[in-house]
Amino acid sequence: MSSETLKSIFETRESQVRSYCRSFDTVFTKASGSEMTNTDGKTYIDFLAGCSSLNYGHNDPDMKQALVDHILGDGIAHGLDMYTDTKAQFLQAYEDIILKPRGMSHKIMMTGPTGTNAVEAAIKLARKVTGRRNIISFTNAFHGMTMGALSLTGNAGKRAGSGNSNAGLTGVTHMPYDGAFGDGVDTLEHLRMMLTNPSSGIDAPAAFIFEPIQGEGGLNAASQDWIEGIGKLAKELGALVIVDDIQSGCGRSGTYFGFEGMDIDPDMITQAKSLSGFGLPFAALLIKPELDIWKPAEHNGTFRGNTHAFVTARVALEKFWKNDSFQQELADKALILTAGLQAVADEVHGAKLKGRGLMQGVDVGSGELASDICARCFENGLIIETSGAHDEVVKVLAPLTTPTKTFQTGLEILLDATRSATAQHKIAAE
Amino acid sequence: MSSETLKSIFETRESQVRSYCRSFDTVFTKASGSEMTNTDGKTYIDFLAGCSSLNYGHNDPDMKQALVDHILGDGIAHGLDMYTDTKAQFLQAYEDIILKPRGMSHKIMMTGPTGTNAVEAAIKLARKVTGRRNIISFTNAFHGMTMGALSLTGNAGKRAGSGNSNAGLTGVTHMPYDGAFGDGVDTLEHLRMMLTNPSSGIDAPAAFIFEPIQGEGGLNAASQDWIEGIGKLAKELGALVIVDDIQSGCGRSGTYFGFEGMDIDPDMITQAKSLSGFGLPFAALLIKPELDIWKPAEHNGTFRGNTHAFVTARVALEKFWKNDSFQQELADKALILTAGLQAVADEVHGAKLKGRGLMQGVDVGSGELASDICARCFENGLIIETSGAHDEVVKVLAPLTTPTKTFQTGLEILLDATRSATAQHKIAAE
Amino acid sequence: MSSETLKSIFETRESQVRSYCRSFDTVFTKASGSEMTNTDGKTYIDFLAGCSSLNYGHNDPDMKQALVDHILGDGIAHGLDMYTDTKAQFLQAYEDIILKPRGMSHKIMMTGPTGTNAVEAAIKLARKVTGRRNIISFTNAFHGMTMGALSLTGNAGKRAGSGNSNAGLTGVTHMPYDGAFGDGVDTLEHLRMMLTNPSSGIDAPAAFIFEPIQGEGGLNAASQDWIEGIGKLAKELGALVIVDDIQSGCGRSGTYFGFEGMDIDPDMITQAKSLSGFGLPFAALLIKPELDIWKPAEHNGTFRGNTHAFVTARVALEKFWKNDSFQQELADKALILTAGLQAVADEVHGAKLKGRGLMQGVDVGSGELASDICARCFENGLIIETSGAHDEVVKVLAPLTTPTKTFQTGLEILLDATRSATAQHKIAAE
Amino acid sequence: MSSETLKSIFETRESQVRSYCRSFDTVFTKASGSEMTNTDGKTYIDFLAGCSSLNYGHNDPDMKQALVDHILGDGIAHGLDMYTDTKAQFLQAYEDIILKPRGMSHKIMMTGPTGTNAVEAAIKLARKVTGRRNIISFTNAFHGMTMGALSLTGNAGKRAGSGNSNAGLTGVTHMPYDGAFGDGVDTLEHLRMMLTNPSSGIDAPAAFIFEPIQGEGGLNAASQDWIEGIGKLAKELGALVIVDDIQSGCGRSGTYFGFEGMDIDPDMITQAKSLSGFGLPFAALLIKPELDIWKPAEHNGTFRGNTHAFVTARVALEKFWKNDSFQQELADKALILTAGLQAVADEVHGAKLKGRGLMQGVDVGSGELASDICARCFENGLIIETSGAHDEVVKVLAPLTTPTKTFQTGLEILLDATRSATAQHKIAAE
Repeated sequence: MSSETLKSIFETRESQVRSYCRSFDTVFTKASGSEMTNTDGKTYIDFLAGCSSLNYGHNDPDMKQALVDHILGDGIAHGLDMYTDTKAQFLQAYEDIILKPRGMSHKIMMTGPTGTNAVEAAIKLARKVTGRRNIISFTNAFHGMTMGALSLTGNAGKRAGSGNSNAGLTGVTHMPYDGAFGDGVDTLEHLRMMLTNPSSGIDAPAAFIFEPIQGEGGLNAASQDWIEGIGKLAKELGALVIVDDIQSGCGRSGTYFGFEGMDIDPDMITQAKSLSGFGLPFAALLIKPELDIWKPAEHNGTFRGNTHAFVTARVALEKFWKNDSFQQELADKALILTAGLQAVADEVHGAKLKGRGLMQGVDVGSGELASDICARCFENGLIIETSGAHDEVVKVLAPLTTPTKTFQTGLEILLDATRSATAQHKIAAE
Repeated sequence: MSSETLKSIFETRESQVRSYCRSFDTVFTKASGSEMTNTDGKTYIDFLAGCSSLNYGHNDPDMKQALVDHILGDGIAHGLDMYTDTKAQFLQAYEDIILKPRGMSHKIMMTGPTGTNAVEAAIKLARKVTGRRNIISFTNAFHGMTMGALSLTGNAGKRAGSGNSNAGLTGVTHMPYDGAFGDGVDTLEHLRMMLTNPSSGIDAPAAFIFEPIQGEGGLNAASQDWIEGIGKLAKELGALVIVDDIQSGCGRSGTYFGFEGMDIDPDMITQAKSLSGFGLPFAALLIKPELDIWKPAEHNGTFRGNTHAFVTARVALEKFWKNDSFQQELADKALILTAGLQAVADEVHGAKLKGRGLMQGVDVGSGELASDICARCFENGLIIETSGAHDEVVKVLAPLTTPTKTFQTGLEILLDATRSATAQHKIAAE
Repeated sequence: MSSETLKSIFETRESQVRSYCRSFDTVFTKASGSEMTNTDGKTYIDFLAGCSSLNYGHNDPDMKQALVDHILGDGIAHGLDMYTDTKAQFLQAYEDIILKPRGMSHKIMMTGPTGTNAVEAAIKLARKVTGRRNIISFTNAFHGMTMGALSLTGNAGKRAGSGNSNAGLTGVTHMPYDGAFGDGVDTLEHLRMMLTNPSSGIDAPAAFIFEPIQGEGGLNAASQDWIEGIGKLAKELGALVIVDDIQSGCGRSGTYFGFEGMDIDPDMITQAKSLSGFGLPFAALLIKPELDIWKPAEHNGTFRGNTHAFVTARVALEKFWKNDSFQQELADKALILTAGLQAVADEVHGAKLKGRGLMQGVDVGSGELASDICARCFENGLIIETSGAHDEVVKVLAPLTTPTKTFQTGLEILLDATRSATAQHKIAAE
Repeated sequence: MSSETLKSIFETRESQVRSYCRSFDTVFTKASGSEMTNTDGKTYIDFLAGCSSLNYGHNDPDMKQALVDHILGDGIAHGLDMYTDTKAQFLQAYEDIILKPRGMSHKIMMTGPTGTNAVEAAIKLARKVTGRRNIISFTNAFHGMTMGALSLTGNAGKRAGSGNSNAGLTGVTHMPYDGAFGDGVDTLEHLRMMLTNPSSGIDAPAAFIFEPIQGEGGLNAASQDWIEGIGKLAKELGALVIVDDIQSGCGRSGTYFGFEGMDIDPDMITQAKSLSGFGLPFAALLIKPELDIWKPAEHNGTFRGNTHAFVTARVALEKFWKNDSFQQELADKALILTAGLQAVADEVHGAKLKGRGLMQGVDVGSGELASDICARCFENGLIIETSGAHDEVVKVLAPLTTPTKTFQTGLEILLDATRSATAQHKIAAE
């Protein structure tokens, strides 16, 4: 069928809520590694990677093979939270490859297979454990769209989806993230003054929740000092620390977790997006064992423990994280990315580099320009998106496995698009 | 590896929240049709079917083949909500096979791939559309575990997971479901009196949400009169009707939707569980087109539109719902089920049949007895669970495709287990 | 100054929220006993009595004298919650005359001098004591207009004052009051079924709060069985009982408290309205001593302990409640009232008597008719108001001290007004 | 009766919540001007003045006479919100003396006669008018103890009175007051950054509410720049400004309103405490006429419009505010106060002057020392209290009418007490 014929059904039957298809207005059929192909056979370099859900690229051959073997062998597809060999093997790999080498004692909770579900589980447990209600969240945070996670989310447009003046989004205090008030202002000090003043009106916190690098919020990377400071403040106040590593985890920041190498020991860590390795729905919550006071099924969900995802997730761990080599590649690639983005930034007056590791971008100063750049990229075969409160950041979330050449090609398309967009804007302004 | 070796990792690393594995304490490796096999090669008949997520059985060969072909052909695994041929084909099949023949104009929203996410989307949209906040939910309802869906859920244990006296579970009025006060009491009349009294303190409702047959709540099946009455009352009050068909849908009730043949036209319908046909995470919300006022991405989620699930879901629709034959089989099977359960009920003093279609069970009067029966079934090779406020209902959720012979065998195991459990209970009581 | 000149300032400067002045559109200057006089010297019989705040009539001579002596002697007018002789004397009288003879151990909390403040204190304390949040309130209840008390209040119009779909009115479950579903329906049984079903979605209650006779709600008098049943149910559930006796107390029901003679021992009792005896702002909360866990000033207010009110309140207790004679008078007057209202009811097809003691009225079936009757009464020198969800009840709240002759005159005016109003309505209908 | 006999009834029957009587442990009987007398005839200078409810002293002779005349003449004591000549005269005086000369168009709403009730009315109306829910309140704010007002209040101890982790205190964002982060930090800039960032998670505000000088919060006086900045920011954001002038109003700040002379035009102003002039319960809300969208009785209360208070309030306006002379006296007295407090501050290392006008105090650095100073004052015949988040501020709230000599005497007692307390503390520390 032609692309147009295929597309008519979306117009007729899919809800208006659909979104990315509006920026990338074509019908995709196949994808491999860092490239996606549409119905016309045109190939695009993918610098979006399912919003960091495809850190290892599309259809990784090893995961693909393991998954097909599993399916053909009548392996369990859906097992609720019953014991399966597949789950045991995933847990064992996670223990051996991720937890033990990092000295982490956390237990793993299989939540419903969406990031927002892991966040909901985390805040429920934080309230249950502490007997407190208030969760401290931060400006520009994005934690999900279900009511609990949405209450933590900063974006006014997303919050408005809940209706009624956001009346259900309670139990959360929103505070300035690192850098939210500009370079000179120490938001951690602000936080401390509000939370240690017994007359501030801010209730004692059950937990702090933050993203080490804010994805949707504009690729804001918190400094090591700030992250460590949050950890210390939480301890002083008897509050828990929840790191939402859904977008920044699984290598995206340059290490497996977004907070590695820092002096912080999170009570809970949310994981999703690239956890399955293959783009399959999978989310989990890491919980310090002493906080694991759930009663059986006290938080559950039909698709918790997506068995297909266990298969690919295990392969991903074994393939990429058994030793340091992948992490070293990431360090190299981050340098390439920074250099490429610096070239882009040099084209735009006042532009700033944002982010860290393989989660970087350029704040080009306006959502209009950023959007124009991305549109020009797409015309030229590059899938790339914006983020930030005003959509002002052009964001690179390429698969971590992107071959250097492809990576360079993508960055060149971006640079060209930026040049033509800024030229156009200059003409328009004259 | 031995089952015991495999199991040790669950003890060490999986959260205490795990649940079904406690009733079915073995490690499963394979499953096909209506049977699951453990590490020792022992085979169990599955009367739980992933809590109705496997209505077409485990690893249906046609879905399996289509999925493997998709994967091997580098079909998209994860595409956010971009257009894909796979999604188009699913939508087209859903339109042709489900919506058009039933005269339904609904649009389809791909929510995050969990039932609770679809429920969250529904109540957000209901509040947005009506400008009201109050959602009417019902006794023994189960709608999910994220904060919005949990606010609708009746079970005190599940609600307690949110901590702090359930303080976040606001904006909902819980009302008696059909039959909640016993046979003689018309709960619809009660509802009408509360909602039409301007001094009742019940705020004008944005929506009613109900399950046509309550799964977790004890297989309570609302009567046609009651369901139609809710529809009429909602219309009078300017409120929307949301049918949560997550467990009762996809043929479980005997028809594709749980409300077919009734004079009600729901504004929204939630689907999940068996929607993918294969047990893969997939959820959707059907929305009357005039209510589809979402802005792009106003409710989103990384795994909305699980492409693997689109593949199997399309095959399921084409294989089972293109004509009436499957539905006729279901009618036959429902009769077998009723007869089998009547035999079980005859063994227990005061027992009552519950449910409708292929979603039936027996209220044996106590959670202790029901649990004992299920445990004995498991020993004898049958996976079956309880439900209800006191876990007092033995619930049959066999795959709809279960061969008659297997179905009969399962029912016999259940009957034997009931006999031995009641005998044991009589001895204990003497 | 003329009435019209005086009235212009209200138009110019007083908020639109003013209300009773719209029904009784004249300027009052003096009042004594059961009569009020306007600027033109016209005298009205007062069957409203400050909504039961003037149970002992206007300007009782003994209270007047005591208050004037206090003022002229430079007695404390405002003392926060410091110790004063005046407060001591009030407390002593309350102990001797009210508490001891009734075997009540309650402590007295001087809340802010409004009924709503006493209600707020009660629900705060109930939540503090039980650690629970949910308060059970009833249809047609009125407990006040501040956010906590308003959350308990049934009337949709009053609730709407809080804005935003009443989003702040949380933590309350509204249940049917005695008789709310008509004569044959036992709402207590309904309540029990909802509250003892662990899957009803109704959270464990901190307290039940109810008015023995609902004033604003339409003079609904709960039966002794129902009131006692609430007490028993609360005990079973570990919940507290708060009796809101603000309007029904101080003799209005025929006894000092509205629940006297019943087998119930309320944990808290709110008092206000006629507590001062003179119409001065004064409210108090009676608390079982074991529940008095407040920390100093944990609930406070500038005008708690209105010293002028202590003076008159003490005189009221000593004058009316030292022995049984006043209560016996009330019994006689209640008979007169019932007889007079029966005559009224006989004039209106389908009319029903409502209420109990000196808090009775007639449900005339429509707010329009009730309003017309009251307007005609006012023209003829009688101040009387409506109540009920539809303002359909003509309500008599005469001072308890009204002389029999005046009482009869008032009832005759009411009867005449009813006759002419119904005649008019018949003509209009023809 | 002896003081001890009188006091026993408080122990037996008054709730533990009582508070000031614990600091001033004697029984008072009379009061006049700036002095209170106990049962033993001992006289105390009153530097507390009913927490600023007695700005014109105790039992002002002119108000006293007018009130006694009113009572003896059978003037209305309680008239709900009916029209009375007394209310008309008060309104006329308020228009002529307060509103017109200041060019204020506000309408007057008679709320329940407590400050908290006026605050509740204000936030309800702000939400109703704007359709928004979020109210911006400030650190160290005190606005009252009913649930709506308490949600705005900063003090953790007071908030804790609501039980359940303050779960009912929603719809409010607490922000730093002027100076809350120390001298160098511009909290207004902070506020602007949070409120203009569309991803801050702070919902669009319905209103800002603040005290021009925070009484309970520690005599923090906001600067003119800050107050004017709030006004401008509110206008930009489409939010209302509510000035809570309950404690700082009626001359306490040096002018009738606490914001006079500043370029701000509040949408609503709450008044209570000294509004009656005599310490009688009375509160009112000033509302810009275009915002007065209340429906009749949409916020009401039995004691709204305390007629006795109208009498004395009118006399107070006529006596003190008809011309500038009283205000000029206040300016002189403020200088005396500042000088006296400077002498006190000089005695305590690190002490700081706080406040403005006749609402000043000394931050002595610790609650323990402040409390010791106040206790020593009381022994020596001076009633004075602390305030602040840590009760670290010794606060002077003398009647505005205090004769200079008495004022000086009081300040000397305070100075002596400070000297002996600090000496004692030095000894203790050595």
